[in-house]
This record gives sequence, C-alpha cells and structure tokens, in this order.
Amino acid sequence: MSLLVVGSIGIDTLETPAGKAADVVGGAATYFAYAASFFTPVRMVAAVGDDFPTAVLDDLARRGVDLGGVEHRAGKTLRWSGRYHEELNVRDTLDFDIGVFGGFQPTLPDAFRDSPYAFLANIDPALQGRVLDQLTSPRLVGCDTMNHWIEGSRPALDALLKRVHMLVINDEEAAQLTGHRNVVKAAAQILDLGLRNVLIKRGEYGVIEFSGESVFAVPAFPLEEVFDPTGAGDCFAGGVMGELARSGDLSPAGLRRAIVYGSVMGSFVVEDFGPRRLQKLTRQEIDGRYRQFMSLTDVPAV
Amino acid sequence: MSLLVVGSIGIDTLETPAGKAADVVGGAATYFAYAASFFTPVRMVAAVGDDFPTAVLDDLARRGVDLGGVEHRAGKTLRWSGRYHEELNVRDTLDFDIGVFGGFQPTLPDAFRDSPYAFLANIDPALQGRVLDQLTSPRLVGCDTMNHWIEGSRPALDALLKRVHMLVINDEEAAQLTGHRNVVKAAAQILDLGLRNVLIKRGEYGVIEFSGESVFAVPAFPLEEVFDPTGAGDCFAGGVMGELARSGDLSPAGLRRAIVYGSVMGSFVVEDFGPRRLQKLTRQEIDGRYRQFMSLTDVPAV
Repeated sequence: MSLLVVGSIGIDTLETPAGKAADVVGGAATYFAYAASFFTPVRMVAAVGDDFPTAVLDDLARRGVDLGGVEHRAGKTLRWSGRYHEELNVRDTLDFDIGVFGGFQPTLPDAFRDSPYAFLANIDPALQGRVLDQLTSPRLVGCDTMNHWIEGSRPALDALLKRVHMLVINDEEAAQLTGHRNVVKAAAQILDLGLRNVLIKRGEYGVIEFSGESVFAVPAFPLEEVFDPTGAGDCFAGGVMGELARSGDLSPAGLRRAIVYGSVMGSFVVEDFGPRRLQKLTRQEIDGRYRQFMSLTDVPAV
Repeated sequence: MSLLVVGSIGIDTLETPAGKAADVVGGAATYFAYAASFFTPVRMVAAVGDDFPTAVLDDLARRGVDLGGVEHRAGKTLRWSGRYHEELNVRDTLDFDIGVFGGFQPTLPDAFRDSPYAFLANIDPALQGRVLDQLTSPRLVGCDTMNHWIEGSRPALDALLKRVHMLVINDEEAAQLTGHRNVVKAAAQILDLGLRNVLIKRGEYGVIEFSGESVFAVPAFPLEEVFDPTGAGDCFAGGVMGELARSGDLSPAGLRRAIVYGSVMGSFVVEDFGPRRLQKLTRQEIDGRYRQFMSLTDVPAV
C-alpha cells in the first residue's frame, strides 16, 4: 500500500572521523524515501530549489517514489553543513541555510490524500498537522520531531501527538519531551497521550519500542566502521513504515519485523556518505542482514 | 560443578538518586557469589576484617558458598563510599579505605585447587595470575579488570589476558584497553590475544559478546527505577559463570543462555541497595525474568 512522507530535502556537506564529503543529497524525506522504496511505493511531499540534482530525483522515481508532491521553487535547496565528533552521536552544525524550505506549506496532490500510511518527518509540528488534515483515511501515521520543536513549539507538538499513532524519536528527545531520563517512564508518559507505539532510537545501542504492555528491544548492528551517521534515523523510520505499508500487518509480530527491517536500513546507510550505500543496495542484502539480526539477538529457550 | 571466585569483600556507603544507604555489604566477590549461588556451588577466596557482619557470611554459607578461602584478618574490612549521578553510569568515590584487603595474597585451600570454573574478579592482575597458578585443572577461567590496572599494571594485565578464556569488562574499559571506541574493533583486538570470548557490558544498554565469528547482543531489562547500580556487573558475571558451571555447556547456545541469566541477575540486584534484592530472590523469579528476556528480544523470522 502507498506510503506518504513529508519532510525536508537538502544538500549536505559532511565531516566525519572517516572523512569529508561536500554537496551530498540529504534531508529526512530523501533518506526515508530511499529506505522505504525497497518495501512499498512511496509518495513524497517536499520542496527543492533549482540547484537540486535532477539525477537524484530521477533515481528516486525509478525506485517507485511518486514525486508529485515535490514542489520545485525558485532559489536554493536547504543546505546543512555539519561535523561529527569521534563520539558519533555528537555533531556540530557548521552552517545552515533553510533556502526554499523556508515558508514551505506542504500541500498534498489530490492523488496523495487517500494514503493509508504516512510519515511526518521532522518539520514544524504545525505543518505536520496540516498534512494530517489533508489525509482522508489514514490507517497508520508515524511522526518524528526534534529538540527545536520540543522547546519552541510545544502546544502544536502536543496537539499533533494526540492525533498520530506512532512516534519515532531518539532517547535525548524522549527525555526532553517528558522530563524523564528513564526510558520506561518516558515511554509510559508518551503512550498516555494516546499513541499506540513509541520507538526510541538509541544510536549505536539500537532501538526500544513500547506499545502498552509490550516492550521490544533490538540492538544496532555491530559495524566495524561507521562512515557517516547522517540519515540513520530517517532510514530506520523508512524501513519500519515501508515494511508495515507493504505487509499491512500491524500486529506486535508485524511491528517487530518492521522494526528489525528499519534497523537493517539504518545499519546500511551509515556504511557510506549520504544515501550512497542505499543507491547500490539490493533486496537480497537487506534480507541477508535481517537474518544476521536474527542470529545476533537469538536468545535460546530454557 | 564448583565455581571459584576471588575478589573483594567490602562495606559500602551508597548515595544514588533514589536514596542513601550506609554500611551495606558489598565487594565484587560478594555480589558474584550471591548471584552465582542460585546456579552452582561457589568457592570464595577473599579477605574480611573483624568488623564484617557474621550474619552475611552465614547467609552465604546457607546458599552453598564455601567460605574456606575467606581469610579473617585483624583490622577493618575494605570500605568504599560513593555517590551516583542522575546518569547512573557516572559515580564519584567519596571515600575509600582498603583495610585488610591491602597486602592480601590470595591462597587457595587445597580443596579449592581442582575448581574447573573460576572467576578472577577485579583485583591486581598480578594477584589474579597468582590464583590462576594455583588451579590444577581449569576448564573455563573468566576475569574482570578496571581502568586502574589498565593504566598502571599493563604488563601484568597483558600477561594475564593471554592465560584466561573469557574477559568481562565494560565499554569504557574495552576502549581504554585497546584504543578503539568502536566495540567491534575493540573486541577483535582483545580476541587476538587468544581469549575465547569477550563480554562487553554497556550499562543500561545491555551486553554484547564476541567469540570469533559469532556476535550476540542482549539489551538490559528495561526497569522503571534503578535504586542502586552497585554490583550489577559482578552479578552479571556471577550469573554467566554460575550458569556455565551448572550446565557445563560451553557451546555458543550455552554461552548465550548464560549471558541472559547474567543479565537477569544484573537486572534484579539494582532493584534495591546492595545485595538486598538477591537475598529475597527466588529461582522462580529468575526463570520468569529469563522468559521476559525471551519476549523482549524475540525477532520474528522472515
């Protein structure tokens, strides 16, 4: 089934302990769409400037991403330049220019309004709500957010969280949102808002998911080298939502399977700069790594 | 089969975000013995002063811990006073007095020398080596260490690591020992010394184990409240070694089962100050939590 994503498309300049890369395509919607496209048809809502490489849009289209919601605006694409520390969970923003993403008001093409699955990537929660308003029959809506909105747009974010089914955030954001550093307490408070599931990303330690009575924890795939952590969280979300949209299986087992596929996608994207690794990735490699996750986490019965 | 442990016995004064507790029994060997005693007979080698509560030694003896190697020396038992931060993996030592543990030269009673399983808890690596010298037929020897010895006793530690089978350390120590913050690289370098297994403890994120080609990662049990993290690592090691000594199964599956039992023991001890929770714990609770670990980590097949 179709999966809608709304979020940023950007051009990044990245510096990591493994090296540097200039003018790499990025943005949450881009990473999400690359990852989800391995599982299901994707509908993309975003904005690009006239400097964005056409080849990348063509590549996404070939992968079954419907770009009908990508607005081409006069001006520059959003640009971010960042440097990661040796501890890869810490990064400094060196430069940021919102470009044509400033003032972007996401409008869904009519053909996108019936999307049963949707992911509201990290943008202003007021805009995330505006997208939700335009969906006619959502079956599963997930969303992401960040410290900037938790601090500065709390009423809009609180209102949004009451309307979505699944929240995908990292542990720092969960603590900031709830005031609890303890992940069990933080998740309980978030679920109290009425969400079905909360997925808390823990970087190199993996993901922990809470749904009422059930808890699922999966480690990150142990990699000898992380070239570039950019987009890992967005690819995780793309794998999760992509697999759920493909299977339609929202049962606890279906969700666990999706979370592991998300972890697989997150583990691949960090193996090269930007989305390069995903551009070469095969479905066979994805399923191979899923099986490696089964082995990595297999607890023998007693 | 019998499991020997050599390490410290202490009296701790603890301050955690959950509260304070004065004069609580502690020490690596104590925690290890409490945890391992649920699985197998334990032989303990340590030193206590004349201020150590007899009731605790009696309690250990009732649990099948052979105290024949516990030296009673005139003077005070080792004392440690510490304060944990809100982030429980950070702690300050407020006061430390080595007491009768200073100058302790572990000597094994003759009846202990045939122990097939042994754990060398965190003490001077020269003393750990001395214990190893006294074992006649070790089948599996595990050891722990800490930053103090990694910095200050490197030649003795390097010599020891070539003689043991399993190293149980935390991620900071693994990084310090190898110069690699990446856990895959750190583990590979440690295994290159000739060890069979390295178990890296990651606090609230669980444990990752490397054995040649195989990797096993298990999350920590998600707890709403951690009262006191003291002894969690020692109880983990006690559960691992205790279960291995009980089963004799050193296969990859046997080791995984032991690592999960270790994680179970670590998850219980932090629920109260000192070893109090273990003093009330039942075997039924242990197996119940093992099954919760199976559910927590269950990755559906594809």
